Amino acid sequence: MQQENEFTKWYLKTIQDAELMDYTPVRGCITFRPDGYEIWEHIQAEMDRRFKETGHRNAYFPMLIPESFFQKEKDHIEGFSPELPWVTEAAGEPLEERLALRPTSETMIGHLYAKWVKSYRDLPLLLNQWANVFRWEKKTLPFIRTSEFLWQEGHTAHENEEEARHETMQMLAIYKEVVENILAIPVYDGTKTISERFAGAVDTFSIEAMMKDGKAVQAGTSHYLGTKFAEAFDIKYLNKNNEHQYVHTTSWGTSTRLIGSVIMVHGDDKGLVLPPKIAPTQVVLMPVGPFKKHPEILEKLEEIQQDLKAKGIRVKLDDTDQTAGFKFNKWEQKGAALRVELGPRDYQNGQAIVKARDEEEKKTVNLTELFTIIEEELEVMQGRLLTKARQFRDANSHTTIDSLAQLQQHIEASDIPGWVLAGWCGSADCEQKVKEQTKFTTRNIPFHPPVQKETCICCEQQAQHTVWFARAY
Amino acid sequence: MQQENEFTKWYLKTIQDAELMDYTPVRGCITFRPDGYEIWEHIQAEMDRRFKETGHRNAYFPMLIPESFFQKEKDHIEGFSPELPWVTEAAGEPLEERLALRPTSETMIGHLYAKWVKSYRDLPLLLNQWANVFRWEKKTLPFIRTSEFLWQEGHTAHENEEEARHETMQMLAIYKEVVENILAIPVYDGTKTISERFAGAVDTFSIEAMMKDGKAVQAGTSHYLGTKFAEAFDIKYLNKNNEHQYVHTTSWGTSTRLIGSVIMVHGDDKGLVLPPKIAPTQVVLMPVGPFKKHPEILEKLEEIQQDLKAKGIRVKLDDTDQTAGFKFNKWEQKGAALRVELGPRDYQNGQAIVKARDEEEKKTVNLTELFTIIEEELEVMQGRLLTKARQFRDANSHTTIDSLAQLQQHIEASDIPGWVLAGWCGSADCEQKVKEQTKFTTRNIPFHPPVQKETCICCEQQAQHTVWFARAY
Repeated sequence: MQQENEFTKWYLKTIQDAELMDYTPVRGCITFRPDGYEIWEHIQAEMDRRFKETGHRNAYFPMLIPESFFQKEKDHIEGFSPELPWVTEAAGEPLEERLALRPTSETMIGHLYAKWVKSYRDLPLLLNQWANVFRWEKKTLPFIRTSEFLWQEGHTAHENEEEARHETMQMLAIYKEVVENILAIPVYDGTKTISERFAGAVDTFSIEAMMKDGKAVQAGTSHYLGTKFAEAFDIKYLNKNNEHQYVHTTSWGTSTRLIGSVIMVHGDDKGLVLPPKIAPTQVVLMPVGPFKKHPEILEKLEEIQQDLKAKGIRVKLDDTDQTAGFKFNKWEQKGAALRVELGPRDYQNGQAIVKARDEEEKKTVNLTELFTIIEEELEVMQGRLLTKARQFRDANSHTTIDSLAQLQQHIEASDIPGWVLAGWCGSADCEQKVKEQTKFTTRNIPFHPPVQKETCICCEQQAQHTVWFARAY
Repeated sequence: MQQENEFTKWYLKTIQDAELMDYTPVRGCITFRPDGYEIWEHIQAEMDRRFKETGHRNAYFPMLIPESFFQKEKDHIEGFSPELPWVTEAAGEPLEERLALRPTSETMIGHLYAKWVKSYRDLPLLLNQWANVFRWEKKTLPFIRTSEFLWQEGHTAHENEEEARHETMQMLAIYKEVVENILAIPVYDGTKTISERFAGAVDTFSIEAMMKDGKAVQAGTSHYLGTKFAEAFDIKYLNKNNEHQYVHTTSWGTSTRLIGSVIMVHGDDKGLVLPPKIAPTQVVLMPVGPFKKHPEILEKLEEIQQDLKAKGIRVKLDDTDQTAGFKFNKWEQKGAALRVELGPRDYQNGQAIVKARDEEEKKTVNLTELFTIIEEELEVMQGRLLTKARQFRDANSHTTIDSLAQLQQHIEASDIPGWVLAGWCGSADCEQKVKEQTKFTTRNIPFHPPVQKETCICCEQQAQHTVWFARAY
């Protein structure tokens, strides 16, 4: 448990040193400073493009949701009511009905889809929203779990179960692809158990990522909602045989907790390590040595800066008066992907020094080849971070623990207990017992488990599922 | 007044027929449907690029603002408190302090800037936020005035008044450029009178646009806040002489009311007319005549669609079974900028028909030249809409009304009273009297008035300012 605290301390220090966020006087609400927000902007751009390529469009729905809307779907209100903030007065007068700050928008969107969907011609209806949402959590952790956070929520309506399930899987696959290829975070995709389902879903699917302390983060979820919300909000369409039918709906979301995840997966003792594709600073240029006596150094760096910008590379030139050591430290904290140093001697030799944030080794590069090397290095670093994260995850994933006693022993013996792939009989009792005794919860039932398990880790009867168990954020 | 009601009816019907928005059960809150939201996405992209080019970065601040924050700047609380919705309970418990849904973020940002600004090296601090805001208005009108709306708010801090005033003007100029060149809406930039200032500003500047009913919309504002918020929130920096000084701050905003404005400026009896640069559909392709018997027609249109998409043009192919008349009507309602018709005879002749949304005339175009013509037509239409809007505005701007009696006569005699450029002595009494008697308010004191006026329209004493008066949304 000391490990966990140390890790949290490291995390909190790292995100503050890197100026990604700051605390605010509102309980559990953080502010996203420019470097933190820019990571989100890059994630948004990557996701948004893929949503649009698969036929989705953005819309915006009201943030305030009447209390009566929540009452319409009973699982939904049970799941969310403990966490809702309420507007009870406005413009000096009490409201007739309390309005919740949205924790998610199925109810409001259900109400509107009922107006918009009339016939099979209106289907599928494929919308997404980028918005702020609220869940008044007891324990908060910046980016990972905050009272207000930013996210996208997709909401779609389909003629039948098959199409809706196809959509659910398609969006989960997009999440997996973005999180792996853009954030360099390997994930397991799979099915949530009943107890971990979204409140109101028929099936919830997730992608799960391992942080450097071995804990899991649910990095994205996609829900098949069946006709539950359609029945609650009367979303019906006239099919080709002129019959009224309920639509089948889905919803899917990812949030700013991805920012927290990327830090917890790649960061090191010096600060942030960011995959180049989302790094606010991909290249930092730095004059070194007695560069003030050699104006040609700064001129050359300015020229390189212009050229890199023109190529669409996010570059900064640090020409401040601070020492080289101070600057190295600062840009390591901030997670600049590559550092290029240019001193008088390098310049004379027509060379520069290139260093990737995640490697010790420095490379001496001919200035004539600099652009090519930078582009290559950024690409190689992107892949390398994914590989390193996958190696770490696999090294901390355990597949030979087959009983609760073994699990407890393993936890006691490990600095990083990591994840455990185990059999599960399918009973909520066993799931609950594992949780109570070890704080390990079911993460998901992976679509492609590394091995299949035969017996339940708890009751040791025949397993119905092979499940990832882990402590989770 | 009948004119006004007819215009509002037309507006409400137009935005609903075009599926830009829908009402919701939450008072004064609308939902932005995909075509409405996409207009906003294009406006966002254009603004955001310019903000970044001028050194600003995006951030995100908490939506909930403690009541005590508002108390710190007295003009600010006086201005906003009548419109605030309040969160008073969360997660089943009453809050110790009420939290307002932000109407604007000067107070929260002031609190945080005080933490972030230490020395002149931290200045200027140039941030912008894209967010939802709340003003619980009595009278609402979709897009133009709603309880919740979307906007951007820039907040900057500077070493001195000169730099802060320069920033204020720079951002107003960016607003003017985007609104004129992208939304094709001509505006007057100028200074707000004291009574129309932002609550807490030293000076407020605005751009003002004329709608087709002659009323004005304040399309963007930029405020020089002096040291008012710096003093309220103790935002001080150490200057180069090692002295503690208050920063000078600015704020500036544009909102989704720009969507309403673009509709009220360009729309016609058939529906939306949208400038190509923000139209969700720039080109709609339509097979006409007995095209089902000629599969080559649809094939050709699909080929054209692919080619236009590849060129980054937003194109739709309407191959539904509806009649041509139905489709023409639908895409006119939705404001598709150009329509391309292809029937069997056209095809045989190697030709297509091209029609711009805002013109009666159709053009017959050789298919070989189609892309060139489409690109040209989109560009020409963009300029033509601005010219038409400027002609309309100038025709309804009156510069020879020099007394309250004349103004009253003019209003009674006009279907569209439009705007009146008149002298003003500078007294709040005269301003108030004009407002009470005519509902004309001061829009702004234009930087470049078409003429200078010598006497006050109300007291007929010497004028201090030449002012645009108009009824306003």
